[in-house]
Amino acid sequence: MASPIEPRTLKGFRDYGPKEQLARQAMLTVVQNAFERFGFLPMSTPVLEYKDILLSKYGDDEKLVYTFTDMGGREVAMRYDLTVPLARFVAQNKGQIVFPLKRYQIGPSWRADNTQRGRLREFIQCDIDTVGTRSDFFGTADAEIIACLAKALEDLGVDNFLVRVNDRRMFELLTYDQADRESLREVLRCVDKLDKIGLSGVVGLMKERGVSQELALKVEEVLQWGKGTETLENLSKINDEGAAQVNYWRKLLDNICALGVPQEKVVFDPTVTRGLDYYTSTVFEFGLTGVEGYGSIAGGGRYNDLLSSFGNASIPAVGGSLGFDRLYEYMQEQGRVVGTSKVDVVIFNMSGNATWVPPVVLGMASELRLKGVNVDLYFDDAKLEQQFKYAENKNAKFAVLYGEEEQSKGVVKVKDLATRDQQEVGVDNLSEFLLAKLEER
Amino acid sequence: MASPIEPRTLKGFRDYGPKEQLARQAMLTVVQNAFERFGFLPMSTPVLEYKDILLSKYGDDEKLVYTFTDMGGREVAMRYDLTVPLARFVAQNKGQIVFPLKRYQIGPSWRADNTQRGRLREFIQCDIDTVGTRSDFFGTADAEIIACLAKALEDLGVDNFLVRVNDRRMFELLTYDQADRESLREVLRCVDKLDKIGLSGVVGLMKERGVSQELALKVEEVLQWGKGTETLENLSKINDEGAAQVNYWRKLLDNICALGVPQEKVVFDPTVTRGLDYYTSTVFEFGLTGVEGYGSIAGGGRYNDLLSSFGNASIPAVGGSLGFDRLYEYMQEQGRVVGTSKVDVVIFNMSGNATWVPPVVLGMASELRLKGVNVDLYFDDAKLEQQFKYAENKNAKFAVLYGEEEQSKGVVKVKDLATRDQQEVGVDNLSEFLLAKLEER
Repeated sequence: MASPIEPRTLKGFRDYGPKEQLARQAMLTVVQNAFERFGFLPMSTPVLEYKDILLSKYGDDEKLVYTFTDMGGREVAMRYDLTVPLARFVAQNKGQIVFPLKRYQIGPSWRADNTQRGRLREFIQCDIDTVGTRSDFFGTADAEIIACLAKALEDLGVDNFLVRVNDRRMFELLTYDQADRESLREVLRCVDKLDKIGLSGVVGLMKERGVSQELALKVEEVLQWGKGTETLENLSKINDEGAAQVNYWRKLLDNICALGVPQEKVVFDPTVTRGLDYYTSTVFEFGLTGVEGYGSIAGGGRYNDLLSSFGNASIPAVGGSLGFDRLYEYMQEQGRVVGTSKVDVVIFNMSGNATWVPPVVLGMASELRLKGVNVDLYFDDAKLEQQFKYAENKNAKFAVLYGEEEQSKGVVKVKDLATRDQQEVGVDNLSEFLLAKLEER
Repeated sequence: MASPIEPRTLKGFRDYGPKEQLARQAMLTVVQNAFERFGFLPMSTPVLEYKDILLSKYGDDEKLVYTFTDMGGREVAMRYDLTVPLARFVAQNKGQIVFPLKRYQIGPSWRADNTQRGRLREFIQCDIDTVGTRSDFFGTADAEIIACLAKALEDLGVDNFLVRVNDRRMFELLTYDQADRESLREVLRCVDKLDKIGLSGVVGLMKERGVSQELALKVEEVLQWGKGTETLENLSKINDEGAAQVNYWRKLLDNICALGVPQEKVVFDPTVTRGLDYYTSTVFEFGLTGVEGYGSIAGGGRYNDLLSSFGNASIPAVGGSLGFDRLYEYMQEQGRVVGTSKVDVVIFNMSGNATWVPPVVLGMASELRLKGVNVDLYFDDAKLEQQFKYAENKNAKFAVLYGEEEQSKGVVKVKDLATRDQQEVGVDNLSEFLLAKLEER
C-alpha cells in the first residue's frame, strides 16, 4: 500500500455534515419557495464554461476566476457567478425562449478570493433574473427582483436588513465631457472599494487611474451626501436630466414598497456601485442592520448590454443574488439555524449476542417505510446506551425495541425520544400506532 | 466593444431550461425522499479536492479525472464521484462522527469520458453510503443500500429494473497461488469490460495483462455460467470456502427481498465487477429490463479499505449511486417525465398603451403572495394573445385580468387556463376566490 494521504480540504472549501446540511437544505427550500412565489422558475447551467464566455465581464475581479486547460486542450473556466452563464444561455437559445424569461438558479460558484468570515471560495448563490422585458424604463421588474429577495430574507426570519439602491447612470450626471464619460467605468470600480479603502482612498485611486480632477471632486461630493431622500433632492437640482432621473428613482423606490418591502428598509444610496462591469443602471445591495462584519448578503442590478457581448441585439435584463453562505453563517452564529428531524423511527438491534437483524425486523422496517414513515435500522449489536446515543444524534423521534422478551409477548416497545415515555404495542398495530403518534406532532 | 463571443457549451455539458429543470427537481425530490425514508441524512463536500486525495482510487478510469493547478500552485481535481470525498471526510472527522454514518449526497461529478446517450461529462449522482458498521459480515447494510435504491426507482415509477449482485471475493475462490491472487485486480478490471469487448475480448485482455492461463480459464468458465441460482450452486461446490461464501450470498439476497425488493428483480451475477479499484466485496448494478442502450442506471458496492488509504484503521463501508441523468434521459424518451406547475396565477398587463403596471396591481400581487399564492406579473404592454402564450408556456393555472373596464366595475376577471372558463370576481374577494379554486385542484 502507498504511504497514506493526509485527509484535508482546500482553503476556502468546506464540508457540511448531516446536521448542518439538513439545516442548509431547509433554508434553501425556503428561498426556493420565495422565488417561486414571485413566478420565477428553475434553470440549470454547467459548472464549466469556455473561458472566453466569462472574460471581460467581471472588472478587477477577473483574476479570481478559476481557469484551466482541459484534456481536450480547451480553455475552460469554473463559473464565477450564475449571471454570465444565463446570458450565454439566452444568447444561445433566444429563438426558443418565450420572453420575459424569469428564472432562478441555486448552486455553487467559485472565486479564488481571500477567505474571511462567511466568504468561501466555493459558495452557494441563489439567483433570480428577469430577461427580456422593456419594463426597465419604469423599474417594475427591478423592483420585483428586490422585493423577491426581501421576501426570501423575511421567510428565513431575517428582517433586520436594509436594501440600498442606486443607479449607475447617476454618475453620468456628474460628467462634463466625453473624456469624463469614458472614465466612468474606472470611477465605478473605485467607488466600489469605498468600504475597504475609505473616501480619501477612493479619491486617490481615481486620480491614479486617470479620472479628471473635476469629476473626482463631484464624485467625492455626492459620496459625502450619503444615502437618503436629501441626496435625491440634491441630484434633481443638478440639471433637467437629473430631475427626470430622480423622478424615475422615486417611482422605483415606491414600486419596491408596493411589492411588499417596508419603506424603512429601502433607501437610495449613491455609494453603491457593485464591482462587476456588466451592470448598466439599477444596482442594489442588501446589508444586515444591527450587526457588523457580514458585508453584503444580497445584491444585483440591471445589465442591459451583457447579451450584446454574445453578438445579440441588446436584451434588457435585471437580476439579483442571495449570498447564501454569509446568511447561513450569520443565522448560525445567532443561534437561528433550526435543526429538522428527518428520522421518524430507529429500530434498535436487540440481538444481544449476534450482529444480526432478524428478517422479521427487516419486514417491520419495510412495512413502515411503505406507509411513509422514515425508518432507520441500527445494524450492529451494541449496548442500548450506544443505540440511544445514535438515535438522539440523528434527532430521531421514536425508538422501536423488539428483543427476545418482546418477541415472546408478541409486542414491540416504542420509546418517545423527546419525552422518554415508553409503550408496548402489539406487533400488528405498530404502524397504525406510529402513524397516529407522528400525526400528533 | 470587443468582437462578439460565440455563445456555446462544452461537449458533454448541457443546460436545463425551466421546463426540464422543474421536472428534474421534482424527480430529485422523489429520490431524496426515498433516501430519507431509509434513514439516510444529507451531507455536502466540495467540488474541488486536492488531487492526491483522488489518485489511485479509480483504476483504468483515473485518466478521466479533471485536474489542474490552481492560482496558489495547488494540484487540484474536480470530484469524479461522491464516494472518495466521503471517505476523505470520514478520515478527517472520525473523532466527531457517531457511527454508523448513513449519509446521502446529491450533486454533480465530472468525468472527461466519451459522451453518449445519457452519459455526460457533468452528471448528477445520487449517493447513499453507510460507513462504520460491522454488519457487512451478514450483508444487512449492503442489502439496505440496494433496497433503498430500488425504492427510489419504484417511487419514480421505474419498476422495470433488475439488480445483479456479485461479490469480488468470488474470484478468490478461483485462484491457485499467491501470484494468481496478486493478479486479481487486473482480472476485475478486465471482466468489467465484458459488455464492451465480449468474453473472448476479456480472455485476450487477461492474457495480455499477465493473468495465468489457469486462472483465465477458470474465470472464463464462471463468466459462461452467467447469472442465477445454478451459478451459486456451482460455486458452492468449488471448496469449503465456496460453500460458506455461497451461504452468505444467499442470506444477502434474502435480506434484499425482506427489505421490499421483489424476488424476481434480484439475481446473483458473477459477471458484475464494477470498474473502480476501491470495491472489496459486494458489488451490484441496476439495469433496465425491456429496453436497450441505457447501461447501468445505478450501482455500487462495499469498500472496506478505502478509509485506510488515508492512514486510518480500516472502517467498513458500503454505498451505491443512482445515475440520475441516464434515468432522466430514459424517462423523458418514454414520455414519463411529468411537468409540474409552479405558477398559480399570472396577472396580465392591461395598461393598453403604456408599459406600466399600476401600484394597485402590484398591491394585488403582493397580497396574494402573502397568502401563499405563486404569482407572476406580466411586465410589458403586449397583446392579450402574447400574454396568454406566456402564461401557458409557464404552465400557469389562472390568468387575472384587471383593465380599465374591470377597474370601473370594481372587479377582476379570473380565467382558468385549463378550462378557459372565465369569471368576474370583486377585487376584495380575489384572494379568497383563488385560494378556494387552488384548493379544489
